[in-house]
This record gives sequence, structure tokens and C-alpha cells, in this order.
Amino acid sequence: MVSMASINTDLDSRRDAIEEALEEFVQLRMAGSEAPAMKLASDILLAGGKRYRPIIALLAFEAAGGDDTSKVMNLALSAEIIHTATLVHDDIYDQSKVRRGKPTLHTSIGLPQAIIAGDYLFALGFGLGGRHDDRVVERIAEACGRIANGELKQLEHVGNLATTPEDYYAIVDGKTAFPFASGCWGAAVLAEAPEVTVTALELFGMEFGRAFQMVDDLLDLTGETSMGKPRGTDVHDGKMTLPIIHALTMLHGVEREQLADVLQNFSDDRWEELTQLLEGAGSFDYVTQLIENHTERAMDALETLPSTEARDMMFELVRISESRRN
Amino acid sequence: MVSMASINTDLDSRRDAIEEALEEFVQLRMAGSEAPAMKLASDILLAGGKRYRPIIALLAFEAAGGDDTSKVMNLALSAEIIHTATLVHDDIYDQSKVRRGKPTLHTSIGLPQAIIAGDYLFALGFGLGGRHDDRVVERIAEACGRIANGELKQLEHVGNLATTPEDYYAIVDGKTAFPFASGCWGAAVLAEAPEVTVTALELFGMEFGRAFQMVDDLLDLTGETSMGKPRGTDVHDGKMTLPIIHALTMLHGVEREQLADVLQNFSDDRWEELTQLLEGAGSFDYVTQLIENHTERAMDALETLPSTEARDMMFELVRISESRRN
Repeated sequence: MVSMASINTDLDSRRDAIEEALEEFVQLRMAGSEAPAMKLASDILLAGGKRYRPIIALLAFEAAGGDDTSKVMNLALSAEIIHTATLVHDDIYDQSKVRRGKPTLHTSIGLPQAIIAGDYLFALGFGLGGRHDDRVVERIAEACGRIANGELKQLEHVGNLATTPEDYYAIVDGKTAFPFASGCWGAAVLAEAPEVTVTALELFGMEFGRAFQMVDDLLDLTGETSMGKPRGTDVHDGKMTLPIIHALTMLHGVEREQLADVLQNFSDDRWEELTQLLEGAGSFDYVTQLIENHTERAMDALETLPSTEARDMMFELVRISESRRN
Repeated sequence: MVSMASINTDLDSRRDAIEEALEEFVQLRMAGSEAPAMKLASDILLAGGKRYRPIIALLAFEAAGGDDTSKVMNLALSAEIIHTATLVHDDIYDQSKVRRGKPTLHTSIGLPQAIIAGDYLFALGFGLGGRHDDRVVERIAEACGRIANGELKQLEHVGNLATTPEDYYAIVDGKTAFPFASGCWGAAVLAEAPEVTVTALELFGMEFGRAFQMVDDLLDLTGETSMGKPRGTDVHDGKMTLPIIHALTMLHGVEREQLADVLQNFSDDRWEELTQLLEGAGSFDYVTQLIENHTERAMDALETLPSTEARDMMFELVRISESRRN
């Protein structure tokens, strides 16, 4: 039995390895002809995200029996860099001011520069991801296609009080769960794991991705900050997250009208009102339960793998994500 | 000796082959889960660009001795799709209203959707390009990195009357010449051509790319339309193209002040004034001469290759580009 403290030390070491590889990647380009674009992109890239995507790719590779982690590092970095590219562009059309605790790129350097910096990050991410065999490359491209489609669906539903849980899942799967699943799948493929292991890790990524995004969406309503953004960002943006979709379904009559009014005419002084309506509808409990369900399914998928140190770390990472407060 | 008419028929057949492959690629995705994003992207993708990038990749492959053109089609489409992605994003920050004779994407579908559609096109282009070996993939990623850096440099110099010819070349090489060169280089690599052929085709692409961009920039000042955009778009955007840089260098005293004033307070009724100043400075002649120089160097590079039908088509394509009126 490995102690909890030891698992957390190991997790930290993986996070450090990712951080170092990322810094090395950035520094190499800060010296060359790409310096101007990298200078713009490096701030957000090195602003200390939680690095869930590259860490699960790294751990999935190890859990799948891969021994030389240098073989998975490009894929891991690719996942983080492409994710960062989407954040830079999201922040533009969400008109967000703060990300990872810093001013968003378009706020600090301007809209054109932020669009280009995002494009540059995509090119970097694809350049790293493209060094693998065709199956992996196609999967990365497919994941990016799904992210785009998930984001389009989210835009379509902004302010739409008739958004269904199915719409929500389509958005979350496109934006987050499929990319998580693809990272784990690709890592297992690179580890040359048997098909049953590849599939188990893909399923793990899918379910963990759903739980992860739901925690994020819940924290937007209940946390102090979420991913370095102020609380309530989604509500201000009119994004239909699951707690809100649930409350709109459960409430009736006067309360349903009140919720619609809060959402359509939201301001920070109506925060208490919104929270009480969601609590009254049992929406926080409902989403918390769903997070637990997806977390359990993610853990069930892990249970089918051989017991390894990497698998222990994955269990722990899932627990940490579930109980995080930002 | 092959007749001119026959060469032009052959060029048309290559353009048709590209167009068909592109349409097939789009249709395949219009049916699947990527339909929403592809629906947004397909309009601009199939709006009938001139397809120089994929055509030169195709011809370079043949001229390098490649026989099965299906081997180069992914690279050719990748070049066109990534180029289209950059156009969609450029049009956003240039606030352009018309492209390829149609309303720009952000004008017709909105800023967020256009950013996402561009990202989706990048993912498609990289997905296609990534199916090749590491050398080619890295080159595609490098070309995209250089495009980003060229665009940043262009932005930096907007409205800057002290922009030098060296700045201009750095912009053109990043945005256009290096991508052209990379397409030709990659095509020759895929054809498994000897190093000397690969290098000759790369040089051809570089010099043709420079000539091509200079024609574009000249047409912005002298043509009726350029690439489906209204004349004078660059002047309105404050872009420092070579004719303007040249005139700013050559003119002195009152005329220099007048030119600075025209550029800084440009409106369509000052068109005649601008044209006369540029003509007086000999700027049109100067840029025409430079176009001829780069065209000749491109053709010199072709001369080193074995005489083939594909090479004849490349000569003709260069001539067509040099004498085009839009």
C-alpha cells in the first residue's frame, strides 16, 4: 500500500516534469525566428494552468505500460498548447478580462495580436502532435474539430432557456471530454498497449472529462474563482450550464419566472437570489451527484487496468479534481 | 514543343482536380458530426480562390518525378485550407467586408463563429498535413509559425511611414514566400526527389511567392480588384506595401509631405492624388521590375529541372500570375 503523501509527491513530480518540458519548449523558440509570436504566447502558456490534460496523458502512458515517458511528452505538451490556443480565442469572443489570474491576451496586447497568438499556439500544438503516426494525428485533428463544434453549439445556446441536458452533454463532450479521452487514448496507443487497455483509458478520459467540466461549471456558481476567472463568468456570458438547465426544468410558476428574469437581467447584486433559486431547485445536489457518477465510471475504467503507481496517481487526480475549490 | 493552348488545358485539368478533391473533402464532413463547423467553413473554402498554393504543390510533385499524384493531394489541400484559415482570421482584424467576391465570414456569421471557423480550418489543414512523415509535418508547422510572425510584423508596421524594404521582405517571406516554398519543398520530398531537385523547387517556391505577393500588393493600387477585395484595401488598412515604401523613400520636400498626408488621412477621393505621387516617384516601375527579377529567379530555378510537362505548366503559371489583373 502506497501512502497518500507519496502519491501526491509523485503527482507533483509529474506536474514538474510537464512544466519543465513546457518551459524548455518555449525557451527554445524565444531565441529563434519565432520570438515575436512566442513572446506573445509564452505569458499565457507559462501562467501556471493546472495542466490536467498533459498530466493525464503522461499518467495514461505509464498506466498503459509505457516505460520511456519521453515518447509521450510531445503528445502531452500538444494537448496543453492546443488547449491554451482555444482559451486565447475563447476569451476574445467571451470578452473575458482575466484568465489564469492574469489579464487576457486580447486585453493586454490587442485583438489582432491575440487572434494571431492563438493561431500560433495551434501551429505549435499541431507541430508537436503531428510527429506521431497517422492514427494519433487524425485523432488530434478530430478532437480539434469536435472542440470547434462544441464551441459553436455553446454559442448557439447562449441565453437560450430551452437548452436541454442533451445539448449540454454535446457541448461538454466536444469541448472537454473528447479531448481528454483523445489524450488518454493517444498515450495508450503510444505505449503500444493492448486494445482493451486503450479502450479503458479512452473511457476513463471521457468520464473524467465530463466530471472535470461539471466541477468547473459548478465552481462558476459556488466557488471563489474558477480557473483563474471571477465567479459567475458563465452567468454573465449567458452560458447554459447544467445547474441552470436543471433549475429551469425543476422550477415552476413564479419561481421559474423569477429565475428566467435573473438570468436575462443578471447583475452581481442578484447573486444571492440566483443561488437561492438553484438551491431550492436542488440543482447543486443534482450536479454534485452527476459529478460523482462520472467520477465513479472513470474510476471503474481504471479498475480494469493492472495496479500500478501511475494508476494510483490517476485515482488521486480524479479525487483532487472532484474536491477542488477553484 | 508543346503548344500554349495545350499547356493551359493541362493547367485547367490540375485546377479541376484540386477543386474536386476539395469538394469531396468538404462533402464528406458535411454529412458527419463536424457538419456545423464545416457548414460555416465551406462557403469560403469553396468560394473559388485561385488555388495557387495547391496547384504549385501538385505541379512541383510531378516536376520532381512523382508519379502517383494521390500521394501529394493531402499536402496540396492542406496548403489551401490553412491559407483559407489565415484569410478568415485576417479579415477579422483587418475588418474586411469582402473576400473572394463574397461577404467575409465575420460579417455574415459573426465574430465568435468566424474565429471558430478559422480554428476549425486550421485543424482540418493540420489533420491533412500531419499524415506525412516528421520532416514534412515539422515544415508545415514551421510555415504556420512564420505566417504568424509575418502577420505580427505587418501589424507592428501599420501606418508606420519609416517601414523599410527589409521589413517588407520579412513580412512577405513569412506570410507568403516561405509557405509557397514549403509546399514545393514538401511536394518534392513526397516525390522522393534527389536533394538538388528538392532545393531547386524550394527556391522556386520562395521566389515565386515573393513575385506573387508583390503582384497582389501592386494590384491593390492599380487593379480593379485584388483577390476578390476592392482596390485600395491595403491603403485603407495602413499596410505598408512596397510601392508605398519606395515612394516614401524617393520623394522629398513638399511631395513627401503630401504623400504622408494622403496616407495618414486617406479617403477614396484622394485616389488620383496617391496614384500620381506613386507614378511620379517611379514606384510602379520599381515594383514591376522587382516582380520581374523574382519571376526570373523562379524560372531559373525551374530551368535546372528536367524538361517535363509539369515544368512547362509551372513556367506558364508564373507568367499568368505576373500578368494577372486581379
